[in-house]
Amino acid sequence: MLSIQTTQLNIPTGMIDLGIGQPSPSLLPLDILRQAADHRLSQADPSLLAYGAEPGDGYFRLALAEFLSRHYGAAVSADHLFVTAGASQGLDLVCTLYTQPGDTVFVEEPSYFLALRIFADHHLKVVGIPMDGDGLSIEALEAKLVEHRPVFLYTVPVFHNPSGLTLSAARRNRLVELSEQYDFLIVADEVYQLLTHNSAPPPPLISFDRLGTVLSLGSFSKILAPGLRLGWLQGRPALLDRFINSGLLDSGGGLNPFTSAIVRSVIESGWQEKHLNQLNRVYQQRAAALSSAARRLLPENVSFVEPYGGFFLWLQFPEAVDVERLLPDLRQRNLNVQPGVKFSSRNGLRNYARLCFAYYDIEDLEEGVARLAGALTP
Amino acid sequence: MLSIQTTQLNIPTGMIDLGIGQPSPSLLPLDILRQAADHRLSQADPSLLAYGAEPGDGYFRLALAEFLSRHYGAAVSADHLFVTAGASQGLDLVCTLYTQPGDTVFVEEPSYFLALRIFADHHLKVVGIPMDGDGLSIEALEAKLVEHRPVFLYTVPVFHNPSGLTLSAARRNRLVELSEQYDFLIVADEVYQLLTHNSAPPPPLISFDRLGTVLSLGSFSKILAPGLRLGWLQGRPALLDRFINSGLLDSGGGLNPFTSAIVRSVIESGWQEKHLNQLNRVYQQRAAALSSAARRLLPENVSFVEPYGGFFLWLQFPEAVDVERLLPDLRQRNLNVQPGVKFSSRNGLRNYARLCFAYYDIEDLEEGVARLAGALTP
Repeated sequence: MLSIQTTQLNIPTGMIDLGIGQPSPSLLPLDILRQAADHRLSQADPSLLAYGAEPGDGYFRLALAEFLSRHYGAAVSADHLFVTAGASQGLDLVCTLYTQPGDTVFVEEPSYFLALRIFADHHLKVVGIPMDGDGLSIEALEAKLVEHRPVFLYTVPVFHNPSGLTLSAARRNRLVELSEQYDFLIVADEVYQLLTHNSAPPPPLISFDRLGTVLSLGSFSKILAPGLRLGWLQGRPALLDRFINSGLLDSGGGLNPFTSAIVRSVIESGWQEKHLNQLNRVYQQRAAALSSAARRLLPENVSFVEPYGGFFLWLQFPEAVDVERLLPDLRQRNLNVQPGVKFSSRNGLRNYARLCFAYYDIEDLEEGVARLAGALTP
Repeated sequence: MLSIQTTQLNIPTGMIDLGIGQPSPSLLPLDILRQAADHRLSQADPSLLAYGAEPGDGYFRLALAEFLSRHYGAAVSADHLFVTAGASQGLDLVCTLYTQPGDTVFVEEPSYFLALRIFADHHLKVVGIPMDGDGLSIEALEAKLVEHRPVFLYTVPVFHNPSGLTLSAARRNRLVELSEQYDFLIVADEVYQLLTHNSAPPPPLISFDRLGTVLSLGSFSKILAPGLRLGWLQGRPALLDRFINSGLLDSGGGLNPFTSAIVRSVIESGWQEKHLNQLNRVYQQRAAALSSAARRLLPENVSFVEPYGGFFLWLQFPEAVDVERLLPDLRQRNLNVQPGVKFSSRNGLRNYARLCFAYYDIEDLEEGVARLAGALTP
């Protein structure tokens, strides 16, 4: 039996699933894409339907470079961009081209759980490095570098998934130094870099790169729409050459020529800029509402850092609480969250939970926290 | 310096490059895509912009299943389809999920040279199995199966790239039996199945599958447009589950939700059907013109089988001719072809060349053969 399912989600009626990490349907810019498609496909230029240039369409990369330069506050060259079919596909390609089964990669503890799944598919050994309030612990990283030689470190340096934490500028410098000294690649998942509320985070990790040890993953999933499957790698041309010259690119051409040509119109027309501003206004209100409800309704022994960007609020419960064991009760109350253990490379973090503020409106976010509070205070 | 390149091609002025294996720009259906995009993006349904269902959108798979059922002359269930970002991406994913470095895969000798590149990226050992007029030699395959245990056999069973040959129905049955007996997967690249002129080829290899040992790669690159990066895997649900449940799919959702939603409109409106008919009319004329020119103009010791589908004419020269060494002279004459050695897994086939009849119109095809004849008959 085929279920006629279009999206990845299948939420039971009445359920508030704060585990979902994606924008609400109402924030998906259908009208922008319709206008951009009409604009691009009316140009009498069929080249977007041919096998695309391996690094991605030059005009699209120029438009993206200009957009990123403006937002990153540092010049981004189109030469340093390679178009992917989304950050996950970029990460999968990094694994194919840089690793062999049994190789070691470092991740943060906690780390994005679906990246851990991709590493498992490539049979990689994963070593977790703890985080503190300033992001990845450099001290802990140095200690691990004495024991292991990782091929790369996978890090979410800004508005971390799930913890919401951001790596400080000082640590960014030190991390890049270590990557040079110990000869490993930094794969920086910077998809939340532009999703920021009042104050800006430090510049992206890629702008700290000096010798070509950093590869940055970017994506239109977070700033435009996940269904486009369109993202980019940013790095030195010498690093990107391995992707451009791979068998997959040689055979299929660029990874998403049709969609990137349409998104070029989204950027060039200024719609991308406007949409990003709207997203950040909405997400700021939702993050504030979720934090405020959590402060107001949850017991005092539940703590968190209020997020100023990204998608997530990361709750720390008392040691004795195992969020995974709490889930059946939460689901009875029509609530779901992501338990911390899913983000652990060593079966830890059981007293944490990830709540996303991007999918639900303020009313549902507040009701969700009230249901959580109900489960915690009998 | 960034070269503002949109497509993979960069043909010098005046050059007739019969090595190119893709449709002419004039055959890229820009207008169909514009109408389909407008139709789909006017539906007030933003679900195509969300993370897509892992196997691909259910409605798209139903439309594709109906289309394939009609053309394959055998019922295709939507349940047996998994949407990819093109056949190359499908093949890359097969390698990631089914192989480890050092594993052995079988290919035809000759084989599609860019598949060989993908296998090299995955560090696979490649063993070539010779072909004869009926396609892959089953006898040679059986002999190799005594020596090696391949994870899979990669085959192009119809209008083979580069040889143009088609595996006979009897051999298809026997091949499937062998895959069951020796426990290997058949990865059948059937992207040319629908590109047929007067007489139909045997049913696709996937329709000979009995126990789930066949995975079929299909693609809209050949029947609609390569730049869409949209294809499918067809196989038993038990085989597809490994793809659906992989980390890449779990993280990014379906592989091309936006484009597949638009192509759903192309299929449902009947445009796909009409476009395929037009392609086959044009390709039939071009194949006939190329064959006729080759018979008329090339020396008698150059032989070939006239193709009745696909993209390619495969020329066999006398043993002493090394096509690769002929290339500088051909290029001086503003002609290029693919030398046979590129398709060999053991540095052989030096006296062969692949000519594509899909990219150039009849006049250029005839002029290309005349230039080749000029190089051969001093």
